Amino acid sequence: MEPSDSAHPGPGRAVWTLAPRLLLLPLLPVLLGRGLRLGAAASSSGAAAKDSSAMEELATEKEAEESHRQDSVSLLTFILLLTLTILTIWLFKHRRVRFLHETGLAMIYGLIVGVILRYGTPATSGHDKSLSCTQEDRAFSTLLVNVSGKFFEYTLKGEISPGKINNVEQNDMLRKVTFDPEVFFNILLPPIIFHAGYSLKKRHFFRNLGSILAYAFFGTAVSCFIIGNLMYGVVKLMKIVGQLSDKFYYTDCLFFGAIISATDPVTVLAIFNELHADVDLYALLFGESVLNDAVAIVLSSSIVAYQPAGLNTHAFDAAAFFKSVGIFLGIFSGSFTMGAVTGVVTALVTKFTKLHCFPLLETALFFLMSWSTFLLAEACGFTGVVAVLFCGITQAHYTYNNLSVESRSRSKQLFEVLHFLAENFIFSYMGLALFTFQKHVFSPIFIIGAFVAIFLGRAAHIYPLSFFLNLGRRHKIGWNFQHMMMFSGLRGAMAFALAIRDTASYARQMMFTTTLLIVFFTVWVIGGGTTPMLSWLNIRVGVEELSEEDQNEHRWQYFRVGVDPDQDPPPNNDSFQVLQGDGLDSAGGSRTKQESAWIFRLWYGFDHNYLKPILTHSGPPLTTTLPAWCGLLARCLTSPQVYDNQEPLREDDSDFILTEGDLTLTYGDSTVTANGSSSSYTASTSLEGGRRTKSSSEEVFERDLGMGDHKVSSRGTRLVFPLQENA
Amino acid sequence: MEPSDSAHPGPGRAVWTLAPRLLLLPLLPVLLGRGLRLGAAASSSGAAAKDSSAMEELATEKEAEESHRQDSVSLLTFILLLTLTILTIWLFKHRRVRFLHETGLAMIYGLIVGVILRYGTPATSGHDKSLSCTQEDRAFSTLLVNVSGKFFEYTLKGEISPGKINNVEQNDMLRKVTFDPEVFFNILLPPIIFHAGYSLKKRHFFRNLGSILAYAFFGTAVSCFIIGNLMYGVVKLMKIVGQLSDKFYYTDCLFFGAIISATDPVTVLAIFNELHADVDLYALLFGESVLNDAVAIVLSSSIVAYQPAGLNTHAFDAAAFFKSVGIFLGIFSGSFTMGAVTGVVTALVTKFTKLHCFPLLETALFFLMSWSTFLLAEACGFTGVVAVLFCGITQAHYTYNNLSVESRSRSKQLFEVLHFLAENFIFSYMGLALFTFQKHVFSPIFIIGAFVAIFLGRAAHIYPLSFFLNLGRRHKIGWNFQHMMMFSGLRGAMAFALAIRDTASYARQMMFTTTLLIVFFTVWVIGGGTTPMLSWLNIRVGVEELSEEDQNEHRWQYFRVGVDPDQDPPPNNDSFQVLQGDGLDSAGGSRTKQESAWIFRLWYGFDHNYLKPILTHSGPPLTTTLPAWCGLLARCLTSPQVYDNQEPLREDDSDFILTEGDLTLTYGDSTVTANGSSSSYTASTSLEGGRRTKSSSEEVFERDLGMGDHKVSSRGTRLVFPLQENA
Repeated sequence: MEPSDSAHPGPGRAVWTLAPRLLLLPLLPVLLGRGLRLGAAASSSGAAAKDSSAMEELATEKEAEESHRQDSVSLLTFILLLTLTILTIWLFKHRRVRFLHETGLAMIYGLIVGVILRYGTPATSGHDKSLSCTQEDRAFSTLLVNVSGKFFEYTLKGEISPGKINNVEQNDMLRKVTFDPEVFFNILLPPIIFHAGYSLKKRHFFRNLGSILAYAFFGTAVSCFIIGNLMYGVVKLMKIVGQLSDKFYYTDCLFFGAIISATDPVTVLAIFNELHADVDLYALLFGESVLNDAVAIVLSSSIVAYQPAGLNTHAFDAAAFFKSVGIFLGIFSGSFTMGAVTGVVTALVTKFTKLHCFPLLETALFFLMSWSTFLLAEACGFTGVVAVLFCGITQAHYTYNNLSVESRSRSKQLFEVLHFLAENFIFSYMGLALFTFQKHVFSPIFIIGAFVAIFLGRAAHIYPLSFFLNLGRRHKIGWNFQHMMMFSGLRGAMAFALAIRDTASYARQMMFTTTLLIVFFTVWVIGGGTTPMLSWLNIRVGVEELSEEDQNEHRWQYFRVGVDPDQDPPPNNDSFQVLQGDGLDSAGGSRTKQESAWIFRLWYGFDHNYLKPILTHSGPPLTTTLPAWCGLLARCLTSPQVYDNQEPLREDDSDFILTEGDLTLTYGDSTVTANGSSSSYTASTSLEGGRRTKSSSEEVFERDLGMGDHKVSSRGTRLVFPLQENA
Repeated sequence: MEPSDSAHPGPGRAVWTLAPRLLLLPLLPVLLGRGLRLGAAASSSGAAAKDSSAMEELATEKEAEESHRQDSVSLLTFILLLTLTILTIWLFKHRRVRFLHETGLAMIYGLIVGVILRYGTPATSGHDKSLSCTQEDRAFSTLLVNVSGKFFEYTLKGEISPGKINNVEQNDMLRKVTFDPEVFFNILLPPIIFHAGYSLKKRHFFRNLGSILAYAFFGTAVSCFIIGNLMYGVVKLMKIVGQLSDKFYYTDCLFFGAIISATDPVTVLAIFNELHADVDLYALLFGESVLNDAVAIVLSSSIVAYQPAGLNTHAFDAAAFFKSVGIFLGIFSGSFTMGAVTGVVTALVTKFTKLHCFPLLETALFFLMSWSTFLLAEACGFTGVVAVLFCGITQAHYTYNNLSVESRSRSKQLFEVLHFLAENFIFSYMGLALFTFQKHVFSPIFIIGAFVAIFLGRAAHIYPLSFFLNLGRRHKIGWNFQHMMMFSGLRGAMAFALAIRDTASYARQMMFTTTLLIVFFTVWVIGGGTTPMLSWLNIRVGVEELSEEDQNEHRWQYFRVGVDPDQDPPPNNDSFQVLQGDGLDSAGGSRTKQESAWIFRLWYGFDHNYLKPILTHSGPPLTTTLPAWCGLLARCLTSPQVYDNQEPLREDDSDFILTEGDLTLTYGDSTVTANGSSSSYTASTSLEGGRRTKSSSEEVFERDLGMGDHKVSSRGTRLVFPLQENA
């Protein structure tokens, strides 16, 4: 409460480190300088300052202003990049160009801007603002500096290598566009990963869960190990040839194996989606890539935690190894639990409050809860990104069913936009980083070795594992599917984020450069080759040459006819339902594969009998599934809607979350929702007091389909969807 | 490219200043520590470090981990607060509690948590991590410190007053929950302000534009001046009484007048909205508060820029005064131009590309362009927040009409959620700040003086101005309206953000504390008193005691019947249209006020004849309005849709952007949109080749209204809205 000297607060706040400030970039206006300027001006008007100090202030003020302007310009650069990308994507979609995906495009634009920034801007070597000052013992986090009687507070930014003292600020503009690597992990990845979990095609995912888990866990581990060992061979070779100028340990190689094992077939999946390729293949690829991202993160931190005791730091140490395995299991299960728990809490809150009357509140709550998962996991020492993934899956599986129709589309759209922006931002940053990142280590041998290693690693992971999985699967994973999975081993955002996270050592810099090149190559080449590859491998896709309108109509029928109604299998039913005909959608052969392992049947039964009724408004009443002695509890937990319907309500399918083509009717006011919500094809579970039965609504559906108009009928609601008349 | 020493990157990055990191809070996962930990661990495994340095690293690592955990916990605190607020808001809405608005609630929860944090957590006085170090001449922005051979980079954080050197880090937790003030300006305010601009009830706003501008500009200036002078008197009194312990200049008083003149009747407007109070009064209040925020920002920075030359720094100086006025005009018009230009560019892009086929791309583009306004303005030295406001208005006026139906609802919902989260965050932070902010200066005399001053300032601004305005207005602003406007002078987020921006000096700290208390008082007392006040002043409101469903239905009829169809007035038409009867909605008397000043007619004509046709798909073809010699240009700029319709298409009304009760039909796929978009009550302008005429659709409307079901009919689309059967 004591008076501070009001004379000079300005210069103190004037020059900040950019990195943390740039963390803000991805979502909202960020810039700070303006206020600083104001503050500085305010302070100088506030006191009878001496001339010299006024001059000083003015200089600092100008500097701050300049720095602030540069920040704005660098952010504008990225916005320009994204805007350009969006417009070009539109052009490509408009002209049906498929050989280049939007992410590839973002990278190209990034590259171009990177070249311009690198060679086009003058190397305005930073004004030498530094001062050396010797200090004993250790680096403190805060430093108080006495400048002619005034005290200034400094904070530790980082250590710099002695060789770089003179070029700390080589080129202001290049520095401005270089982000703190943690941005990727803490801001850009979470929405991408959450969206992946939230838009998981649930049914197909769970149907292939066993295979997906096998690919994700064993596959990634195998791939990591093989790549690590191969790269260790390459490193040894480099040592012999004399190409290696610094240390490169075995653990470094394993770390490289871990980060490069995170596949990201975003390009392939986009094309699959567009062409309506086989849904099971889609589920396998998507599920694997989503989960192996999580595995790769945790694996890489476990490898980092592998620290053998004693001086012989790079020999095998059983204790340290088991500790690493323990860390892996601990972090993974901890993150999983965090994510699942937050999802369950959200489901309970949305079930037992009538929040769905206020979609805005509901969406806000949904967003906050999903975000809190990340924080909770980080606060407990787990991995936020992994927790967010499982939270997304839980939210899609339970909470989504409790949301109002409007909130469903809101939450879906919100995360879709965030995901889209974050993903394209990362890819355009990658393009930029190739030229603006200042610590690249290009090593041709290492790069060639890495390409060979990831190819072999992927092969050693897909083919043997598929062989073993086929022993257990009723419906085998065909050779063409295996080849396609082999081919789709793209590397993307996750590998990049893991690689850029730590580029302090020589080995890490080399890894980063190599990862960048691998991402470039795979996105461009494999992305472009997907369509030819699909036809070469004889993988059936939907009817391709439809117009936009027809595609839309087609997708409708596809969902309606080609896919079985989403209903949980009856408990204790020995065989899972077989798809009820493929109808218009011609994705024949391989669509009837299922898992029938007892553990999944057990899970399905448990989920259907207990979890769904507790967490959502669907499923059989708990009073019938729980033993008699928990009757009171069962009555409390079961929602009244369940009693109204002798037949359990059908549940909305999260399949439709991802699809752009779904038709959502949003009412501005929730009261209508609670009353006659008519989500297109399924009877919404949030329908209160809905008295119609499934069969009657399906009859209408069937009849309407025959008429070419899609009509959904529910009490008080009649809706005919407009279709192209000449369709 | 030279190898950096790979041994110790960890400790360098370990301890960051929190403030910039916390900037990230409002939207996405933020935390950095996890990566640091990983990095530190990696580095320690990466080299044969000496024992002492390893120990050192371990300590720093632990510290970083601890700090990271605290960050997570403090963010979780805020999320918990917001979640609690959301749930309680729901309860209140559910139970129809109107005396406490959500923002008031957020403040109360903030207060409670603030008390707990202040008195409940142990004052873990920061470990003394500081070191004094003497330096000559001036403070550098970067400091290199040599610690036993290793170099560390430090950045300037700020100046601290000598008295506070010993308690810089008094309580870690309190420090954690205290944000950098620029967060408010650069992250939280922009979405709030953009949303305000985007959801402006356009027609009513423009109808009352003259009065609104007068209240916003003259009113704010008058209020600022009166409050400033009164407060100067109070300050003089305090000096005499001996209550003032530091300097407090006249410019400080004026500054206080500026920041406290920004009204924020969010509570009042929410209640107006709920009760369907008079739309013109709503437009006056809302328009004034939106614009006076902008005026207050620019005014406060102009006052700060008022620096008389010479030694006599606090006397009146004409040159400096005119310079300040020039700065005001420059910043204001510059920001306005920036915002308008970005809006116009977005409108052109969305008009001339078929981006509306891909709503995701469209929404992303919309978001990026709106964000770039902020950056552009900041880069040019203008005020981003003000630019964002005008960008929002432009986007609503032009771009909104070009968007696909889905993008309209997406963009609306996106900004609604952002606005909601940001607003409630600010208010809960205010509650928290009362106890956790460590530099409060409570001065009873100043506080009482301020309350009296803002009351008098508001009175001196509303009544005389209304008198003069009534001389020119055909439809007078009644006494009850004037009293209501007087009463609704709440202070909120903007005053707080301006006040917290600079709390370096004693005067500013006192202002901050006072502002906080004024916000508390006005939000709680005036928020609670709005409903009684409305009835006391005999301001007609919609039928109040309706059920949710009825309210929804009612609003429908209200819009349809009570409000004239949104159509630009015919150019050169001497009288603006009079409302066509009040029908079911009984908001009689004062609803037929209009502006008829020639300047607004001029603007209307220009907007309707040139701007609308150029920037949107509506309005008369340019070939008819432009002179013959620009025929080619006119043909290029006019969209083909315009020619198809002899009668200009009706334009979608941005009125409905704000309204929660509007009914939007979103199709997942844009192709449907382009074909038969049926936005509830208005013929969408993006409707391609729509052949129906206004009158026919209105006929259907009319008929349907009589039937109790609301039915909108357009080619191929038939839609009956579900209504409560017992309504």
